[in-house]
Amino acid sequence: MIRRLAIIGVGLIGGSLARALRAAGAVGEVVGSGRRAEHLQQAVDLGVIDRFSTDPAAAVTGADLIVVAVPLGAMGEVFRAIVPHLAADAVVTDVGSAKAAVVTALREALGEVPDWFVPGHPIAGTERSGVAASFAELFQGRRVILTPLAHTDPQAVARVRAMWQHAGAEVVEMGVELHDEVLAATSHLPHVLAFALVDSLARMHEHNEIFTYAAGGFRDFTRIASSDPVMWRDICLANRAALLDMIERFNRDLGEMTRAIEDGDGDALLEIFSRAKQARDEHVLRGEE
Amino acid sequence: MIRRLAIIGVGLIGGSLARALRAAGAVGEVVGSGRRAEHLQQAVDLGVIDRFSTDPAAAVTGADLIVVAVPLGAMGEVFRAIVPHLAADAVVTDVGSAKAAVVTALREALGEVPDWFVPGHPIAGTERSGVAASFAELFQGRRVILTPLAHTDPQAVARVRAMWQHAGAEVVEMGVELHDEVLAATSHLPHVLAFALVDSLARMHEHNEIFTYAAGGFRDFTRIASSDPVMWRDICLANRAALLDMIERFNRDLGEMTRAIEDGDGDALLEIFSRAKQARDEHVLRGEE
Repeated sequence: MIRRLAIIGVGLIGGSLARALRAAGAVGEVVGSGRRAEHLQQAVDLGVIDRFSTDPAAAVTGADLIVVAVPLGAMGEVFRAIVPHLAADAVVTDVGSAKAAVVTALREALGEVPDWFVPGHPIAGTERSGVAASFAELFQGRRVILTPLAHTDPQAVARVRAMWQHAGAEVVEMGVELHDEVLAATSHLPHVLAFALVDSLARMHEHNEIFTYAAGGFRDFTRIASSDPVMWRDICLANRAALLDMIERFNRDLGEMTRAIEDGDGDALLEIFSRAKQARDEHVLRGEE
Repeated sequence: MIRRLAIIGVGLIGGSLARALRAAGAVGEVVGSGRRAEHLQQAVDLGVIDRFSTDPAAAVTGADLIVVAVPLGAMGEVFRAIVPHLAADAVVTDVGSAKAAVVTALREALGEVPDWFVPGHPIAGTERSGVAASFAELFQGRRVILTPLAHTDPQAVARVRAMWQHAGAEVVEMGVELHDEVLAATSHLPHVLAFALVDSLARMHEHNEIFTYAAGGFRDFTRIASSDPVMWRDICLANRAALLDMIERFNRDLGEMTRAIEDGDGDALLEIFSRAKQARDEHVLRGEE
């Protein structure tokens, strides 16, 4: 049971977590913080949080669990603001999509990564953002990856794990580096490709005709290009190394396919397409669609 | 009212069209043809067609409307087989995703493009294939693009248009070249990118972990990589010129984004992501999600 939960950044993720924990009866009071009072007031009006302060230091006072759910670029600033005001037993976690960058931001802000900080990342979300899009079921059956460091307090990890389990998620642990590589592959690269594709088409002379005839497959494929641009700018910069490595792999493979198309090499195309279809059907569809 | 409809290739598209026309009471008899008798028997068992012949020449005999719904690579062969057996008043259309290639295949097979042939393309489908995946509602509210040539018989166009309207579709006309460009942008390039991405990941050492942590966005983004490899091999080769042009545009844009990531140029990334999000939200979401 969490006595007082402080959520810094009450958007889709922070708001959905608050809703889920309230629905599960797993939290006493929820205090929100963020830069804009009108968004926080909206969160109060929606019943997502009990009260708020635009000053994160005030919001964390007396909280036993603090979730930092701001864009990656704002993490360092938030940590500097809240650390002097944390309760002695407070545990802090985050929801950033790139864990090495968060660990580095903490080390830069505080001189070290405290043992009461548990880096975390819920593999959940939609292309929508903001507290109005939040819902209690967002984490049901989803995975949350925790990437504790060697010196992270096991009790702190246990409390963060319990919080996510109350929200309906399955919690797994892995190293920071593997997390960043896996996310670059399954999330960051796909977003980059979707943004690049939509931008390519938008810049074409015939873009009105093009979008008019876009069918269901296109809408699915580009849904993630409707995601929050600020969040994705920060993710791309924060996970730069792993993402650039994935872009390079992808370019190699796309180059192979392009040459096969140029050469009219149907056998090569069929081999690639068949391998891709098999991989997706086996791994991704496994009981999930 | 169609007296006797012959469908060459009773898969997702051909099967769904037959179901829709039957449901609308717009067709007398439906005769199927294809290479594999067991698939055609399945179509009879499912109530999709009345009878079948594995010989397309026999299937078209006495039919007033013929829909060729085979992969693009098989079109020429089908046309050569059926033309000597067509009734005098027969109209033929196809559902191929690349229209210049179909027109060329006809010209090569018959020496000219007959005035009773109406090139067509329903902008509908799923990543599934085969008659078992067909359903009567597939074309409801979807667009069908017809690309008649200058000498195509307007009566033939009107009959094909009426057929698709009976199936619930909105029919539009455009030139062969514009169709191929629009489809390269909105369908063929996205499929190539999805196949390339999934294949890239499948070839990585950690591919099991990678696919395990793939979330909803990834599943949406890669759904089209579960499409039929043979069909997509044929489409890539058939619409090669327009597709290569789109791949080049895309590579230019992805290259710009990659440089911005390398340089840590957050402003450039934010500009691209914002423009893409706006374009998608404005054009694609317009009342459709």
